[in-house]
Amino acid sequence: MTPGCCPHYHEAIELIGRRWTGAILAVLLSEDRPLRFNEIAQAVPDLSDRLLTERLKELEERGLVTKRDGAYAVTPMGRDLEPALTQLQAWGQRWLTA
Amino acid sequence: MTPGCCPHYHEAIELIGRRWTGAILAVLLSEDRPLRFNEIAQAVPDLSDRLLTERLKELEERGLVTKRDGAYAVTPMGRDLEPALTQLQAWGQRWLTA
Repeated sequence: MTPGCCPHYHEAIELIGRRWTGAILAVLLSEDRPLRFNEIAQAVPDLSDRLLTERLKELEERGLVTKRDGAYAVTPMGRDLEPALTQLQAWGQRWLTA
Repeated sequence: MTPGCCPHYHEAIELIGRRWTGAILAVLLSEDRPLRFNEIAQAVPDLSDRLLTERLKELEERGLVTKRDGAYAVTPMGRDLEPALTQLQAWGQRWLTA
């Protein structure tokens, strides 16, 4: 890694590190079609509607998610996070399952 | 991605998503030798000594960092995060530099 060079690394980590954001992105990335609010809510059972609304709004504002006809989908910017999140998922399975 | 299957994905994201943790790991991962507290502090200028102490302690407790003879190094578990963090860094450079 190259530390210090990349102020946006920090920003990227804070963005995905917000509570529930990773889970919401995982749900949207796992489907090839846009998902309705209730479908996302059902896939992340412990997340309140209020927080889901807030997080989706943030993701929209940051350009990772779009809303169209009442359904949510990842943008190319959001889709491009998949390799990083998949790596994190694999790391968690390797090291946190003890 | 496979959502829902992996409780540890959530945990992994929260772990690296804590403020400064990603920056500290990037510094440790960029060197092949253990680093002293002051070396890490200098490489992350905006981070207070108090918070650096706290974060290093957390990383030690979680098994990502070890302390030996007053210097800090990543463990194999910490080193194994490098691909995910490098991907996040690259994503940030692609999408957040506009």
